[in-house]
Amino acid sequence: MKTVSTSKSHGGIQGVYSHASSACDCDMTFAVFVPPQAAETPCPVVWYLSGLTCTHANVMDKGEYRAKAAELGLVVVCPDTSPRGAQVPDEPDNWQFGCGAGFYLDATEAPFADHYRMYSYVTEELPALIADRFPADMTRQAICGHSMGGHGAMTIALKNPDRFTSCSAFAPIVQPSTADWSVGAFEKYIGHDRAAWRAWDACALVDDGARFPGGFLVDQGTADGFLETGLRPWLFAAAAKKAGQSLTLRMQEGYDHSYFFISTFMADHLEWHAARLKT
Amino acid sequence: MKTVSTSKSHGGIQGVYSHASSACDCDMTFAVFVPPQAAETPCPVVWYLSGLTCTHANVMDKGEYRAKAAELGLVVVCPDTSPRGAQVPDEPDNWQFGCGAGFYLDATEAPFADHYRMYSYVTEELPALIADRFPADMTRQAICGHSMGGHGAMTIALKNPDRFTSCSAFAPIVQPSTADWSVGAFEKYIGHDRAAWRAWDACALVDDGARFPGGFLVDQGTADGFLETGLRPWLFAAAAKKAGQSLTLRMQEGYDHSYFFISTFMADHLEWHAARLKT
Repeated sequence: MKTVSTSKSHGGIQGVYSHASSACDCDMTFAVFVPPQAAETPCPVVWYLSGLTCTHANVMDKGEYRAKAAELGLVVVCPDTSPRGAQVPDEPDNWQFGCGAGFYLDATEAPFADHYRMYSYVTEELPALIADRFPADMTRQAICGHSMGGHGAMTIALKNPDRFTSCSAFAPIVQPSTADWSVGAFEKYIGHDRAAWRAWDACALVDDGARFPGGFLVDQGTADGFLETGLRPWLFAAAAKKAGQSLTLRMQEGYDHSYFFISTFMADHLEWHAARLKT
Repeated sequence: MKTVSTSKSHGGIQGVYSHASSACDCDMTFAVFVPPQAAETPCPVVWYLSGLTCTHANVMDKGEYRAKAAELGLVVVCPDTSPRGAQVPDEPDNWQFGCGAGFYLDATEAPFADHYRMYSYVTEELPALIADRFPADMTRQAICGHSMGGHGAMTIALKNPDRFTSCSAFAPIVQPSTADWSVGAFEKYIGHDRAAWRAWDACALVDDGARFPGGFLVDQGTADGFLETGLRPWLFAAAAKKAGQSLTLRMQEGYDHSYFFISTFMADHLEWHAARLKT
């Protein structure tokens, strides 16, 4: 692991690191905030998964998580959203597929299956690195994300119900198997057999019996331009209601899809996770 | 004035606007945050002047001012750092001069004097536009800035002591007339007669009798790579002590020159201004 940069911020350290990833077969970059409390004892971890087109840097710069994470004693880990590099197959003109659009799944289709393994990266390889190199209490983890990363957080929580105390999302794509901006990517990453897509779709996972006992907190802006075509939180609300899955869905009047929205509710989400992580 | 974008954030509105500037003889872009309290009554204004290489967007994205400004009921105005555009003379490879490096002064030397009039822009033209188009209480204004913008805030406060209740700075260039990164710009903007430079130098202004009754708050990181060569807050501390000028200088252990530093102390600065603006 190579340290790209570190800066003191809000009493803790905001770092950026890179490493050779075996899951993605390329170099990967990620950001970690270590709160001041970690000088005394390992701190619980909140994973933040970003949305389409982002790297680790967008939420690090614009997410406004450090003040609250420093207050609550939370390590915040922000991975990249896809493999990257000259050897990684990509469609540079397509912001909904390829680099910046890994969808937190493990691709099965050539030529993408060699690199696009963000599920394995985020749930296995990177946690092992965090456990090894940072003052993180890996027995206490929560996960959240935005948009495509909200999809990632919710599906990962449903597939790993014992690992995370809690899961929250900002404007998540709750049913990517039917949303305009993800169907094309799913076809290329995991093929035309739509039965296989259900393992990467929060609504389908709940329909098929997956449950997350920690419960979900979802904030969704009413002025979000992607609300009707891509996000549709009511689909997950219906699936959760039918299944008895705990969900708090808050429609936030007048907010859009941007980091101006995310940063507004970031402190709320961290406090919600901290209460469940018992910081 | 043209609205470039608006987004709801922290209960207020973060907007970006552009207009044809007569002071700078080019189109200028700026950011304004209007807090929720402004729906009821005009709110006091905090000016934030950015540093070298920045536009209005850097602090808007990374400065973490909205949560506290929304709580305290402060309008926050973030101008650009220079004129810009095809007709504006520039040295694209020089980050310490030209576009992104207006130094908040009025240039007197050709060919720069036609556009590089950031002092007039920030103290006359833009305030008139803000007063006309935003719910701002212009009888209550404070000013702050970072690095080159800290220089701007301090010199503008000293030159307009009755306009602002208070002035604060993050890692300001306190003596630009002798600092490595500003001497070249001063020569090109205002010529070789160094006596003329004293009107744009916080230390020289205080030495020459200017006073700011509102007092200064300055935060400076000890791990700032520009501390010894460009910033040197001790020079202003000495000038202020000699002159009886109120100054609170806080050396912040381990902090660098980045927005990770600025965002850490932004809430402190806004609270300090709000106490003086009597919000």
